[in-house]
Amino acid sequence: MDEFGLIAELFAPLAAGYPGALNLKDDAALVEVPPGQRLVITSDAIVAGVHFLPDDPPDLIARKLMRVNLSDLAAMGAEPVAVLLAAAFRRDATADWLRRFAKGLAEDVAEFNVPLIGGDTVATPGPLTLTLTALGRVEAGRALLRSAARPGDVVYVSGTIGDAALGLKVALGELPDLAAEEAEFLAGRYRLPCPRTALGPRLAGIAHAAMDVSDGLCADLGHICRASQVGAVIEAARIPLSAAARSVLSGRNFLLASILGGGDDYELLFTAPVTAADLIAAASAAAGVPVTAIGRVIEGDGVKVVDGQGDEITQPAAGYRHFS
Amino acid sequence: MDEFGLIAELFAPLAAGYPGALNLKDDAALVEVPPGQRLVITSDAIVAGVHFLPDDPPDLIARKLMRVNLSDLAAMGAEPVAVLLAAAFRRDATADWLRRFAKGLAEDVAEFNVPLIGGDTVATPGPLTLTLTALGRVEAGRALLRSAARPGDVVYVSGTIGDAALGLKVALGELPDLAAEEAEFLAGRYRLPCPRTALGPRLAGIAHAAMDVSDGLCADLGHICRASQVGAVIEAARIPLSAAARSVLSGRNFLLASILGGGDDYELLFTAPVTAADLIAAASAAAGVPVTAIGRVIEGDGVKVVDGQGDEITQPAAGYRHFS
Repeated sequence: MDEFGLIAELFAPLAAGYPGALNLKDDAALVEVPPGQRLVITSDAIVAGVHFLPDDPPDLIARKLMRVNLSDLAAMGAEPVAVLLAAAFRRDATADWLRRFAKGLAEDVAEFNVPLIGGDTVATPGPLTLTLTALGRVEAGRALLRSAARPGDVVYVSGTIGDAALGLKVALGELPDLAAEEAEFLAGRYRLPCPRTALGPRLAGIAHAAMDVSDGLCADLGHICRASQVGAVIEAARIPLSAAARSVLSGRNFLLASILGGGDDYELLFTAPVTAADLIAAASAAAGVPVTAIGRVIEGDGVKVVDGQGDEITQPAAGYRHFS
Repeated sequence: MDEFGLIAELFAPLAAGYPGALNLKDDAALVEVPPGQRLVITSDAIVAGVHFLPDDPPDLIARKLMRVNLSDLAAMGAEPVAVLLAAAFRRDATADWLRRFAKGLAEDVAEFNVPLIGGDTVATPGPLTLTLTALGRVEAGRALLRSAARPGDVVYVSGTIGDAALGLKVALGELPDLAAEEAEFLAGRYRLPCPRTALGPRLAGIAHAAMDVSDGLCADLGHICRASQVGAVIEAARIPLSAAARSVLSGRNFLLASILGGGDDYELLFTAPVTAADLIAAASAAAGVPVTAIGRVIEGDGVKVVDGQGDEITQPAAGYRHFS
C-alpha cells in the first residue's frame, strides 16, 4: 500500500460529507467560516517514545491525538469543525497496523463529528510522528483566552482532576494494590482523554480565561496567571476527585503532588466573574459535565494552594518540559 | 532553552502584527475569513533523510518547508494568510541550529507576508520532522481544483521545468562538467523553490484545473487527468527550459526523463479554456511569472508526450512514492 492507496482506502472515507475536503485529492481543502465567526486553529505534534509508547494500540494513539487537539478547541470556547492529519508513519508499518490506526481515527471523526479534510502521509525511518491540526469556530469576540482572567474571578475546573496522573502510575504498575475496577478507570482516563467539547463552546462569552489541563493543574493555572498578570489561590480540599482517586489518596497524602502537578487530564480550567455562577451552572448542566469552583483569582502573581486551614501547601515541580 | 523559551525567543516574534496569533501563548489561534471568501488549508510533513538531508542548512530547511506549502496554496488560486509550525526538533539540536532555523523561517514570513500564528514544539529522539500548516483565502467558487480540467483546455506551466531534478544531480555530483554559474542556478532551484504566490491567485476564476509540480510534470498532469476524467497530450519541445537546463540537455537527450519525471519544481501546472489566453497572458505579466502553453486536454485518459513529429515519447517512471 503506497501513500495514494493509503489515502484512498483508509483516509478518504473520513472526508465523506465535507465537500471542501475534495475527497483528499487536491492540494488543499476549502473551509467556509460563517460571517461573524472566527476560525480557531491549533496544531499538536506527538512522537512515539515521547508522548506515547511505541507499542500502544494504534487506534488509541489516533484517538488520543484527536482528543488532545479537540480539547484545545474546547478551551478556546470553539465548536470543532474539521481536522487535518500529517502523519509520518514508520516505514515498516504493516497494513494491519495502519488499518487499526485509521479505524480509531474514524471512530472519533464520527463521535465528535469532525471530518478529516486534509493532511499528508509520509514514511519515516524514525519513530512514528503525528501532527493533527484541528479547526473550530467561535463567535467573534467570544473566544476564551488565557489572558482574560481578572482579580475576583472564581477559578473552576470541569470533571475530576488527577485521574490521568494516577492512571499513568497504574499503567506503570506503581499502584498494584488497587481494586481492578478503580485501576481500570484511572488507566482509561490516562489512555483516552475526554475533551470537553460540549462544555467549552457553552462557556464562550460567559467565562473569562480558559485553558485545558495538560501540564498539570498548578502549572496550567500558572500559565493563565502569567498571561493575565494576576495570581490565584486554590483550595486543595475543593479539587474535584473521582471515587477512584479518593480511594488511592486515602492514607497516601504524598500522592497529592500527582493531583496538583500531574498532567493529561484534559479537563477545562477557567475563570469567571462571581456573577456568572448561574450561567456556568446552566452550561454545566446542558453539557452534562460537572464543574467545580476551586479558588479565586487575586491581584499579584503565582499560584498558591492552601489546605483547609488556609495554610499554603508546598507545590509540586512544574509540568513536563521538552529540551530541558 | 526549553520549549517555552524557544517559542518566546525564536517564534513569538514571527507572530508580530497578527493579533489572532495571541503571541503564541494560547491554546489556539483566531483567524478572520472575510465574508464571501473561503479558507484554504494545507498541511505538509517533511522528515530528515527522506525529504532533505540531515545536514542541510537549517535556514534552508525552514524556507523550503514554508515554500512547498505556499506552493500548494498558489495551486488552489489562494492568497497566503498565515502558517502554523509543528516541529519535532532533534533532542540534541543546539541553540545555534535552532536560531538559524528560526532565522530562515523569519525571512520567509517577511518575504511572503505570512505570520506564524501557532503550532507546537517537541523534542524527538528520531530524525527532525516538521509539519507546516498553511492558511490562505480565495473567493468562494473561484478556487482552482484538480478535477476541473475540460477537454479542449490548453495545458500551461509557469516558469521552467526540470531545473530542480537537474539541480539534485548537481548536488549529488552527477554533472561535474557543468559551468559553475549554471550548476549554481540549478542547485539553487532544487534547494529553494520559488512558490508562485503572485501568479496563483491571479488565475483564480480564470484557469480551470491547477496543481503544483512536485512529483514531476507527467505524474502531476496525470493527477489532474485522473481527477478530471480526461487525458492530455504535451509537446516535449514546448516544455519551457532554463538556459542552464538547455545547456545540460544539449547532446544528452537521455536526461529528458529528468525533465518529464523529475519533481520539486513547484511551478504551477494548470489548464484553461482557449478563450482565456489573453487573461492568462495578463495574469502572467502582472505576476511577473512567465507562463507557457505546452499541450492540450483531450477526452480519454492518461498523459501522452509527443516529439516535434507528433510521435509519442516513452514516458519516465511515475513520481516518488512512500511505502512502496
